[in-house]
Amino acid sequence: MISYTSYLTVTTPERYEIRDITEEVERVRREARLADGTILVSSMHITSSIFVNDHESGLWSDLQTWLEKLAPAGLDYRHHLTGEDNADAHLKRSILGHQVIVPVTKSRLDLGPWERVHYGEFDGRRPKRILFKAMGLAE
Amino acid sequence: MISYTSYLTVTTPERYEIRDITEEVERVRREARLADGTILVSSMHITSSIFVNDHESGLWSDLQTWLEKLAPAGLDYRHHLTGEDNADAHLKRSILGHQVIVPVTKSRLDLGPWERVHYGEFDGRRPKRILFKAMGLAE
Amino acid sequence: MISYTSYLTVTTPERYEIRDITEEVERVRREARLADGTILVSSMHITSSIFVNDHESGLWSDLQTWLEKLAPAGLDYRHHLTGEDNADAHLKRSILGHQVIVPVTKSRLDLGPWERVHYGEFDGRRPKRILFKAMGLAE
Repeated sequence: MISYTSYLTVTTPERYEIRDITEEVERVRREARLADGTILVSSMHITSSIFVNDHESGLWSDLQTWLEKLAPAGLDYRHHLTGEDNADAHLKRSILGHQVIVPVTKSRLDLGPWERVHYGEFDGRRPKRILFKAMGLAE
Repeated sequence: MISYTSYLTVTTPERYEIRDITEEVERVRREARLADGTILVSSMHITSSIFVNDHESGLWSDLQTWLEKLAPAGLDYRHHLTGEDNADAHLKRSILGHQVIVPVTKSRLDLGPWERVHYGEFDGRRPKRILFKAMGLAE
Repeated sequence: MISYTSYLTVTTPERYEIRDITEEVERVRREARLADGTILVSSMHITSSIFVNDHESGLWSDLQTWLEKLAPAGLDYRHHLTGEDNADAHLKRSILGHQVIVPVTKSRLDLGPWERVHYGEFDGRRPKRILFKAMGLAE
């Protein structure tokens, strides 16, 4: 059994951004030489998400509009008494989740036809880290 | 360490459906002869969910009513400019999540008394695949 | 490869509570002597959550207020026809999720600077169990 860990630092130019990181997951699989198993992809920050959905810019826009409706920025959150202004980011990331498990079979990411792994940033303009951990049987 | 992968194709007669698939997870455990470890259960489509909740039809109805309120069908979504009409399904599945990890201990699914694994379909009437990957120590 | 399983029973004095359980995850890591791998932390009950967020009481209050808005108690839920009164708890836990995977690297929980593992109770005052399963390479 192998276990291989890698980190990626992302700094988005805007506060909110959705980005397809599937190629990074495939890079980690290759580096790990993982033939069969899983790759954990997990945001190490509490104001961003990792999720699986369609790579389609209209849908990304819908997701952002929808999250803003369910968890609006600028409300009178108690978290802001600490000096922070990002309580909405903590709530938005709770809806989409902060980690996914990507299955690997026969040395390939075992994803459905439209499944893509995404990073969702809700408090960007600063460096954020993503952890990848590949576990399973080596090539 | 063993790693065993299985797929299940589901075609629901209706657009929306909630279905208990715990027996399928137990079938995969038996086939894998997994004594201790985990079974990843993951929807391979981006408009359906895998989640753990109570097997109770009233609750299933509540879940569907609630998801419709939080992520309504028929709004003017940008995703629909592509010709699709299922943006609500992408949002609904985001709330319930698209995968769960089922722990296995002493050759049994290690679930609490009311925990059941469910498939949630939000854009059915077409074949959808579910991936199961059992990893851990063999019997 | 090792696989080590542990359970924790929690009985909260109130119906709703958020509690930091990161120290319990670290305890399981030590007991398992896990050097590299993952620890699954999963609620065995369908009215409570496991999630990762900031250890900050203002944010915990915001989370509870927000969940109450999205999934209110006291509505006319069909689940209540069974005699239960906790349908809102089933919905609230669906938003935050019921399990997380904690990565372990070099014999430490591999968490970001503000990542803490939390238990979210939405129908307390009774014993609830949390499952921990540590898998990977031993020290």
